[in-house]
Amino acid sequence: MPPLHVSRWFNTPQPIALDQLRGRVVAIHAFQMLCPACVTQSLPQLTKLRLAFAEDQLAVIGLHTVFEHHAVMGVDALEAFIHEYRLRFPIGVDEADPRGPLPKTMAAWGLQGTPSLLLLDRQGQVQLSHFGHLDDLVLGAVVGRLLERPFLPAVAASSETEDTQHCTADACRIVT
Amino acid sequence: MPPLHVSRWFNTPQPIALDQLRGRVVAIHAFQMLCPACVTQSLPQLTKLRLAFAEDQLAVIGLHTVFEHHAVMGVDALEAFIHEYRLRFPIGVDEADPRGPLPKTMAAWGLQGTPSLLLLDRQGQVQLSHFGHLDDLVLGAVVGRLLERPFLPAVAASSETEDTQHCTADACRIVT
Amino acid sequence: MPPLHVSRWFNTPQPIALDQLRGRVVAIHAFQMLCPACVTQSLPQLTKLRLAFAEDQLAVIGLHTVFEHHAVMGVDALEAFIHEYRLRFPIGVDEADPRGPLPKTMAAWGLQGTPSLLLLDRQGQVQLSHFGHLDDLVLGAVVGRLLERPFLPAVAASSETEDTQHCTADACRIVT
Amino acid sequence: MPPLHVSRWFNTPQPIALDQLRGRVVAIHAFQMLCPACVTQSLPQLTKLRLAFAEDQLAVIGLHTVFEHHAVMGVDALEAFIHEYRLRFPIGVDEADPRGPLPKTMAAWGLQGTPSLLLLDRQGQVQLSHFGHLDDLVLGAVVGRLLERPFLPAVAASSETEDTQHCTADACRIVT
Repeated sequence: MPPLHVSRWFNTPQPIALDQLRGRVVAIHAFQMLCPACVTQSLPQLTKLRLAFAEDQLAVIGLHTVFEHHAVMGVDALEAFIHEYRLRFPIGVDEADPRGPLPKTMAAWGLQGTPSLLLLDRQGQVQLSHFGHLDDLVLGAVVGRLLERPFLPAVAASSETEDTQHCTADACRIVT
Repeated sequence: MPPLHVSRWFNTPQPIALDQLRGRVVAIHAFQMLCPACVTQSLPQLTKLRLAFAEDQLAVIGLHTVFEHHAVMGVDALEAFIHEYRLRFPIGVDEADPRGPLPKTMAAWGLQGTPSLLLLDRQGQVQLSHFGHLDDLVLGAVVGRLLERPFLPAVAASSETEDTQHCTADACRIVT
Repeated sequence: MPPLHVSRWFNTPQPIALDQLRGRVVAIHAFQMLCPACVTQSLPQLTKLRLAFAEDQLAVIGLHTVFEHHAVMGVDALEAFIHEYRLRFPIGVDEADPRGPLPKTMAAWGLQGTPSLLLLDRQGQVQLSHFGHLDDLVLGAVVGRLLERPFLPAVAASSETEDTQHCTADACRIVT
Repeated sequence: MPPLHVSRWFNTPQPIALDQLRGRVVAIHAFQMLCPACVTQSLPQLTKLRLAFAEDQLAVIGLHTVFEHHAVMGVDALEAFIHEYRLRFPIGVDEADPRGPLPKTMAAWGLQGTPSLLLLDRQGQVQLSHFGHLDDLVLGAVVGRLLERPFLPAVAASSETEDTQHCTADACRIVT
């Protein structure tokens, strides 16, 4: 999975890299502060996620993926929004791309819009990428399944090197 | 009641003055686009008000009364907000006052914050000024009572001239 | 309007007749204890109505109009239901009719099913008869309008005596 | 876990025994048809559970545990209730105990009241027993975790025989 490109972080003393989160399940919510479904449904759900699970088991991250109305959803506007909505979890600003409307992480991950939710397992593999709102019961079940799966560091390491080496511990494959 | 001070209107071909609305009941909702209770509760309620009553009986107006985070709740930001939240009723921008954080209409009306709802009877008299959210059933009842009261143009006219003449049809009073 | 036929009252020290309620607006909710929309939507709304208005202005009455599953919605079942759901307003049992499934009041009033809501003005005239659930805002507005209308005892009296005397204060008319 | 004592089943062609459900996660909801929180919150949640997961992975069962108002929550009343509320999952009537108000299964399982939810893992072991309503997100997470755990028939078998044999595949222990 391509890394996060974040130009500014809120609610965290230090920048967050996905690699650091190995061993935990990760929920990443791509939103825009002027997206109604994000504001009324998905961000409250993210706060519920944060409260329902332990931080050392589930990491919860917001990603401000502005792809429209750029002029009025800048960092200052987002800061006021985070303050007024009392959002407590880490939120990163997806880095703008001078070549187009889509910010860098959003483009690299192929997201379709906002709200989008990604769930990564303890190895850092994407297990769910959903555009739109997910029912609490369904989201809870996916998180529960991922929490139950053990962290397998060795497997994770080999899958990370796959792209460059084209080999895992079991096999090498031809890459065109 | 002091007049509206509006620097910019949305969703109306012409500026609105309260005087023009005599004969109709008027609901005015003071809000800020970064006020959570406004966004999740009061603005949806205002849309319900607009849909539940005829326009020639009830006028519904939003007033963007920015008293904090001025830099990120400007006219361009509000325009994007109105577009994304599909707000259809007329919305005015309460005119900023260079001398202080409160915009002019908000200060003149003595509003306590956002959301605030004002209901004017057909004569233009304030019959309800409420800070916070009102339950639908209670709001509906107040609107219903005001709709039932007839428009009495003569009384309205005399009360309008009161400030300058200090006389009504019944009496004249001393004004210091 | 045909009178209430009630075989048993709950939550009232004495039987209620509609005539006694002249001068007040009256909300009558026809329900069945095994009707899902009644239980989840209309009865909670009736409790809100009771709490939102003064008793000397608005009378709130439940009417248990059983037209199916008669064997399991008897008086004892209703009593347990009223107790468990903490219903506080007067509730009458619509009198069963040995000739058919519809109870007497329901048949006389021509109700289509449950939930049904009737609103009577201060003169006792039906101003709204609605089958299904009504939005709080809309219901509030109708109640508000009716509360605003004055009680006109003379008109009410003459209309009551009309059927037998065929005369009002203004005129007598021929009745075939 | 003590077995189900059910005097009558609905929505299932044959009686259900917990033993038959080994290999699946099981959700059992103890309710009463005149319990408000059961009707408005827990039974709709049970329907959501039924729709969100495959039947061969999660078994969903309602248990009508009448411990008050026995006379008006009999089998006929429950049948009408199930019909009107369109409940589709299997529902058993907890067998009345002539010696007391608590029905047999409810007493054997030590339930505190209604609504109560029990979740059994694929081996039939109780993993959650909750009195009151559970949030969808939290319930989803527990179900997800249990679904992720494999069925271990051998372990299950040995744990079942433990009480009489005091031996598992690994060891025998002294029982006083």
